[in-house]
Amino acid sequence: MRTQVGIVGAGPAGLMLSHLLHLHGIESVVLEGRGRAYVERRLRAGVLEQGSVDLLRRAGVGERLHREGLRHEGIELRFAGESYRVPMTELTGRSITVYGQQEVVKDLIAARLAAGGTILFDTEAVRLDDLDSDTPSIHFRRDGRAEELRCDFVAGCDGFHGVSRGAVPEGVLTTYERTYPFAWLGVLAAAAPAVEELIYANHDRGFALYSMRSPEISRLYLQVAPDEDLAAWPDERIWSELRTRLETVPGWSLNEGPILERSLTPMRSLVVEPMRWERLFLAGDAVHIVPPTGAKGMNLALADVALLGEAFAAWYGQGRTDLLDSYSATALRRVWRAQHFSWWMTSMLHRLDRDDPYETNLQIATLRYVATSRAYATSLAENYVGLPEV
Amino acid sequence: MRTQVGIVGAGPAGLMLSHLLHLHGIESVVLEGRGRAYVERRLRAGVLEQGSVDLLRRAGVGERLHREGLRHEGIELRFAGESYRVPMTELTGRSITVYGQQEVVKDLIAARLAAGGTILFDTEAVRLDDLDSDTPSIHFRRDGRAEELRCDFVAGCDGFHGVSRGAVPEGVLTTYERTYPFAWLGVLAAAAPAVEELIYANHDRGFALYSMRSPEISRLYLQVAPDEDLAAWPDERIWSELRTRLETVPGWSLNEGPILERSLTPMRSLVVEPMRWERLFLAGDAVHIVPPTGAKGMNLALADVALLGEAFAAWYGQGRTDLLDSYSATALRRVWRAQHFSWWMTSMLHRLDRDDPYETNLQIATLRYVATSRAYATSLAENYVGLPEV
Repeated sequence: MRTQVGIVGAGPAGLMLSHLLHLHGIESVVLEGRGRAYVERRLRAGVLEQGSVDLLRRAGVGERLHREGLRHEGIELRFAGESYRVPMTELTGRSITVYGQQEVVKDLIAARLAAGGTILFDTEAVRLDDLDSDTPSIHFRRDGRAEELRCDFVAGCDGFHGVSRGAVPEGVLTTYERTYPFAWLGVLAAAAPAVEELIYANHDRGFALYSMRSPEISRLYLQVAPDEDLAAWPDERIWSELRTRLETVPGWSLNEGPILERSLTPMRSLVVEPMRWERLFLAGDAVHIVPPTGAKGMNLALADVALLGEAFAAWYGQGRTDLLDSYSATALRRVWRAQHFSWWMTSMLHRLDRDDPYETNLQIATLRYVATSRAYATSLAENYVGLPEV
Repeated sequence: MRTQVGIVGAGPAGLMLSHLLHLHGIESVVLEGRGRAYVERRLRAGVLEQGSVDLLRRAGVGERLHREGLRHEGIELRFAGESYRVPMTELTGRSITVYGQQEVVKDLIAARLAAGGTILFDTEAVRLDDLDSDTPSIHFRRDGRAEELRCDFVAGCDGFHGVSRGAVPEGVLTTYERTYPFAWLGVLAAAAPAVEELIYANHDRGFALYSMRSPEISRLYLQVAPDEDLAAWPDERIWSELRTRLETVPGWSLNEGPILERSLTPMRSLVVEPMRWERLFLAGDAVHIVPPTGAKGMNLALADVALLGEAFAAWYGQGRTDLLDSYSATALRRVWRAQHFSWWMTSMLHRLDRDDPYETNLQIATLRYVATSRAYATSLAENYVGLPEV
């Protein structure tokens, strides 16, 4: 099998890259270890920056997003019995759109298949070879048989546990990492959202996040221990804890409903540099992870492949190597901006250490400063809606 | 001995309070353990916020400050071979003034003595009594004799190691604290400043700060270990280290000269709440300490006593207790804002842990964000020049 760009992974990064290459007349094949139904239902991020929305629309895959996505112009912060709405659009002129990652994935798969694109589901990439030659290859298993995809370039969009990053020789990559002493218990509930915008709550018992996926579905999160046992969280305990942490404003209450799904999300900050080795280009979670507090994961993945799409177009169209060469450095500027923002939001909102009351006072002082300084609120807002150029 | 307000400590807080009370026709006596020459030479902070300058001028003690103070409209940040000037005045309309704390002390002592005020130097406050009565007293030793000052109120402006805070009964005060794993080696050098504005440098070998006290005197700081031995730092080692950390911009070099004084400043963040108990009012370093990176210590002390001056004036003039009652809560809002800012500047600029390269990258990302976002640069600037109302 032969193509121009071999893409490992059918998440938002791999699919979007394949779609962007197609628009430039460049051939690609996407290999995905899981089945189509699985990736179309995989619950992940749900907030799109303005720039991501613009990218999807320009690429012609924003039609359903435009129809079903929930456009938000602010977020609410709750802390120490106080409440403040960050008026994001008023401060920046931009907005965010709530639209599940799996919906983006569905739209991109539909667009690729409609255009005759090749996505090989249930196909496990096993090994990358000859990355330092003009004809790298991806060895994969499909229907029990070992096969090979030869290509000009490989795009590793297969997440943190994928095979791509490991194909880079020892000593080339540097990993920067931070872990956090907590996780998120996330639930999807059949309950109409009680508010129209997201609520981020700093509470003595830990962080809570109120969000939504549609006018009928709420998406809620609670800070818990990193090794929390989900079995210890029956529905009533979850609702009780959400009420405690979120119902801190007089007259406001949650809407409750059956819990459809629950999961534990570990928190980690990670960057692997550089994002390229020879003919292998790494994008998305394969090389950087942020805690979900800043809602940056999917947006970074899309920003990475937007750069890659332009870089491959310049190479195939005009024989230019400059954009391929600058890809890693350019992408990393945005990556580190998002790392800082995600770390900052995480540190400001979670109970980091129950024995450090200085830290708690510092968080409240920071939140009050967001609530009283137009400049500081703008810095939160411009990161949240996404900086156009970093 | 009898007065209206007994003031412990002749630092900027105690002296300024005595002066403000005098302007309101309220009598006070200041007790100071050290001699006049000592407090007038004690090297401490040197940056006055716009609000502090305005306060000193309005109180009629800003004449020499106006003549000799160096007005600055920006500060420079150096990091990772890059350099950025924060245009503070352009961003906020306000500025800072470089003028040594000991100069403020000299001016205030001169003003108090010229007006017939009482400052008892070499007078050690030993014990505060009857703070929960209408006639509290300060027991002190002077010329080997035990004496007593009876008053209506006591103002504890005697710094962290003073006697005042300890007079509050056990269980009333809560202390919030953070320490840092480094200190500042500070030197005063007979060298004309090589630049007109302060330079804050984040360097792999640690933080450095370039500042000045006059057109002939430079004030320089180096991050060192908290238990650093000053004897291990002969002049040439100090200059060599300063060159390494500060001469990171092509074509720029330090002016060197004889080192007149060297000292080690520990770094600590500390808040004690509340700032009042019965008839005792605590101000300045007695109840809050910030690392010097944000240049907030003296400014907070002056802001505290500005509130106290008004509160005592309302009490003596109109019998009002409201400002005395709200003093602690009002002051603490500013205190925590400064705590956050000082912690943030400190964390962004120092090498916190040589084994955490994630942290270093986060610092560089933060500094680059200051350098590229008007909103974020404004948040630094508005804190540095001082928020008018917090």
